[in-house]
Amino acid sequence: MIEIETLQQRLREFADERDWEKYHSPKNLVMALSVEVAELQEHFQWLTAEESLALDEETRDAVALEMADVLIYLVRMADRCGVELADAVRRKLVINAHKYPAD
Amino acid sequence: MIEIETLQQRLREFADERDWEKYHSPKNLVMALSVEVAELQEHFQWLTAEESLALDEETRDAVALEMADVLIYLVRMADRCGVELADAVRRKLVINAHKYPAD
Amino acid sequence: MIEIETLQQRLREFADERDWEKYHSPKNLVMALSVEVAELQEHFQWLTAEESLALDEETRDAVALEMADVLIYLVRMADRCGVELADAVRRKLVINAHKYPAD
Amino acid sequence: MIEIETLQQRLREFADERDWEKYHSPKNLVMALSVEVAELQEHFQWLTAEESLALDEETRDAVALEMADVLIYLVRMADRCGVELADAVRRKLVINAHKYPAD
Repeated sequence: MIEIETLQQRLREFADERDWEKYHSPKNLVMALSVEVAELQEHFQWLTAEESLALDEETRDAVALEMADVLIYLVRMADRCGVELADAVRRKLVINAHKYPAD
Repeated sequence: MIEIETLQQRLREFADERDWEKYHSPKNLVMALSVEVAELQEHFQWLTAEESLALDEETRDAVALEMADVLIYLVRMADRCGVELADAVRRKLVINAHKYPAD
Repeated sequence: MIEIETLQQRLREFADERDWEKYHSPKNLVMALSVEVAELQEHFQWLTAEESLALDEETRDAVALEMADVLIYLVRMADRCGVELADAVRRKLVINAHKYPAD
Repeated sequence: MIEIETLQQRLREFADERDWEKYHSPKNLVMALSVEVAELQEHFQWLTAEESLALDEETRDAVALEMADVLIYLVRMADRCGVELADAVRRKLVINAHKYPAD
């Protein structure tokens, strides 16, 4: 279990201790986020859909750490934008439920 | 507060009820994730770093919902890859603390 | 037929006439390029590989215009970076021929 | 000078000689294109706009080769989609001239 708010607090301290605040504008962070997603995507570019569902253990582990990078930059960026990510997700789930009724 | 595991369970049910599983290969989901990050990035492409730190309320709200989409696809993808995202984040924080010592 | 150098010149004039130079830093342009690639990618995210090889005419047309946007931003960015794109491609083709021998 | 059509022909032969056609669906190629753009973007993520306009020679050279990769995948993808890229660019320039009148 991990709470987004707890993670956000830890990342803020981590950046503060390294004097990274000056680099962590939302503009820079969204670029870094985009680069991390591409590193994740790179594992899948030549795979078939079926192969992508049956990763070997080594690839799954590498993929897991890339996903962690994506989440870390997303949560850091939310903090620097003053966005409440958990609240935004709740709102988005309601929007999606209306947009795509289950039948 | 939102737990990743709870969100993962809700997204799984949401996809099941809509018969989306056949579209939700990791390969397709990482493409969708990448597209969502670009929609987020689009808000920042012509801003200065300073402007990106001082979003007006309307932009912040739009940005929040794009961030929610990113998190939703990331969590859904982790589920389809059999990745424990919270565990991966914990491991990555340890790796980063060693890679970037505070002093 | 279109030469990259001719396109670069036209895009430079186009930007100058609109006073866009101040927005066209390489940093901003690579973000815009990335967003355009995502708009292209969006057409393919839920398609199978086979479906992506057999686009209907309307989709192919939309895809063509997204590809044009990608090329336009790439050529504009090369200009603002002082990069000779045609020369870089020639060098890269030599590198690739050595890296991936045909047999 | 490099013509897009000549480059397209060379890339087709290069792929044929290596039996890569089976990997080169538009879906896979757009993913590879997106990854190459991210490798380009990575050079700029922590730079200011001003720094991005004054790259040192080594960075400019690395950036040039990443741009070449972007162009190579774009041209290869256009070929596999049956898209006439030069024609699409011409159409897009007309569209842009109408959309953004110079004054």
